[in-house]
Amino acid sequence: MNRKIALVVEYKGTNYKGWQSQKGRVITVQDCLEKALSKIANHPVSVICAGRTDSGVHACYQVVHFETKSIRENKAWIHGVNSNLPEDISVASAVEVDEDFHARFGALSRRYRYIIYSNQFRSAVMAKEVTWTYRELDSSLMSQAAKCFLGTHDFTSYRAVGCQAHSPIRTIMNFDVYEANSYIVLDVRANAFLHHMIRNFAGVLMAIGAGDKPVKWAEEVLQARDRTVAGVTAPPYGLYFVDAEYPEKYGLPSLPLGPHFLPTHKENNYATTN
Amino acid sequence: MNRKIALVVEYKGTNYKGWQSQKGRVITVQDCLEKALSKIANHPVSVICAGRTDSGVHACYQVVHFETKSIRENKAWIHGVNSNLPEDISVASAVEVDEDFHARFGALSRRYRYIIYSNQFRSAVMAKEVTWTYRELDSSLMSQAAKCFLGTHDFTSYRAVGCQAHSPIRTIMNFDVYEANSYIVLDVRANAFLHHMIRNFAGVLMAIGAGDKPVKWAEEVLQARDRTVAGVTAPPYGLYFVDAEYPEKYGLPSLPLGPHFLPTHKENNYATTN
Repeated sequence: MNRKIALVVEYKGTNYKGWQSQKGRVITVQDCLEKALSKIANHPVSVICAGRTDSGVHACYQVVHFETKSIRENKAWIHGVNSNLPEDISVASAVEVDEDFHARFGALSRRYRYIIYSNQFRSAVMAKEVTWTYRELDSSLMSQAAKCFLGTHDFTSYRAVGCQAHSPIRTIMNFDVYEANSYIVLDVRANAFLHHMIRNFAGVLMAIGAGDKPVKWAEEVLQARDRTVAGVTAPPYGLYFVDAEYPEKYGLPSLPLGPHFLPTHKENNYATTN
Repeated sequence: MNRKIALVVEYKGTNYKGWQSQKGRVITVQDCLEKALSKIANHPVSVICAGRTDSGVHACYQVVHFETKSIRENKAWIHGVNSNLPEDISVASAVEVDEDFHARFGALSRRYRYIIYSNQFRSAVMAKEVTWTYRELDSSLMSQAAKCFLGTHDFTSYRAVGCQAHSPIRTIMNFDVYEANSYIVLDVRANAFLHHMIRNFAGVLMAIGAGDKPVKWAEEVLQARDRTVAGVTAPPYGLYFVDAEYPEKYGLPSLPLGPHFLPTHKENNYATTN
């Protein structure tokens, strides 16, 4: 009988052409993870993830599931797989889950953080780990503007032209904009996201924060339901997939919300709890 | 007449074989910087730095000087050079200095931060930006142990066997151990450092923090004046050159102390001020 295992996976997206396996000679996170899992399982393993991230996007709490005939301790799925992964991908947790678990269709919500570094000079140390802008941003304007995204809306203006989702309607549960260390963080939880949705939010909010556009512009763009009226898509560097939430019965672990270079807040700072 | 220019340079050391140019086909930070400067100066430029960092070691406030016949605005030495540098090296400041300025011999003090991430699982997102250990560390024990390093001592036990400095005597002005976000930070200021000195401090303090050795061991190692009694040299990943101090008359800038993913403290958080 097949067993179903759920993993929590962390990765730096810089060196990968995104999460999803592709035709051709590109390397993706999925390729690396399936190769390492297949070695430990001793048979070919395919994984399904909570949120397919784009090229250059990072994850601190990506959830995947796979099926296996092999009987292994959870420790083996962590340490054994980690020793077969490159240093920029790691497994933080492995649990056996009920057969009805599904990493993609079973997720109640996803959460991303988009980290912006506003400074006169670009950062050499964190060039691909945060999104740099030389412009000064007013985070309180960005915070006000972001309020219009809360709730259920048609997000046509904020999804990539090539987005393949059937519906442009999504529900945003939380959208916080705050300063942390030297950064401005967009912290967004939704039932699900459209392609480039957060990077398009970031593009619009950065234009508002810089004073190029008024606060109400975020809502005008939303109501236009037209991608061409929105601003540029912000770069992938500062984007982290930080949580996917599932019904409690599956027993996915609570881990500190990443990335771990951000300050730890007292509240709401654990993945999979809300 | 030649002009002398002092730069503040930031870099991620991960992709370089250290600061200093070497024979053979290795790439160093110095090589890249001299190449970019030579392009802007329109003649070959050689630089001298405050502290030569090893392979994999980062810098937020490395100071270099060079001489040039060319007349350029400071902005050109910043933006022009930056546009000729790879993304993991950047110039944050350029000032013309008196001809007696010397980045290496004129520095009154250097300051490093060594950043340790203690967690059950390795970090994929910051694999080369912090030093990871799976062991739990008691930072208060490490802080107590570090007190013995303060002042002027013969640091033979804490320098690399191949260290080429004439004297093993150095003066440590500050040595703070504190927790910041998810990290333990060793924050050390000295007149100058020996080869591998901070990584050897880190190796000894991590053994003490993990409970393998008592607090007094740091001092016993110091007094032994014998490298072979000390612990392992900790990895370069978590090491950042964060400040070099010069007499005020040269006008080097005060910048926020890096790396910028650490929390900003109210006091003592600017480079070149003390």
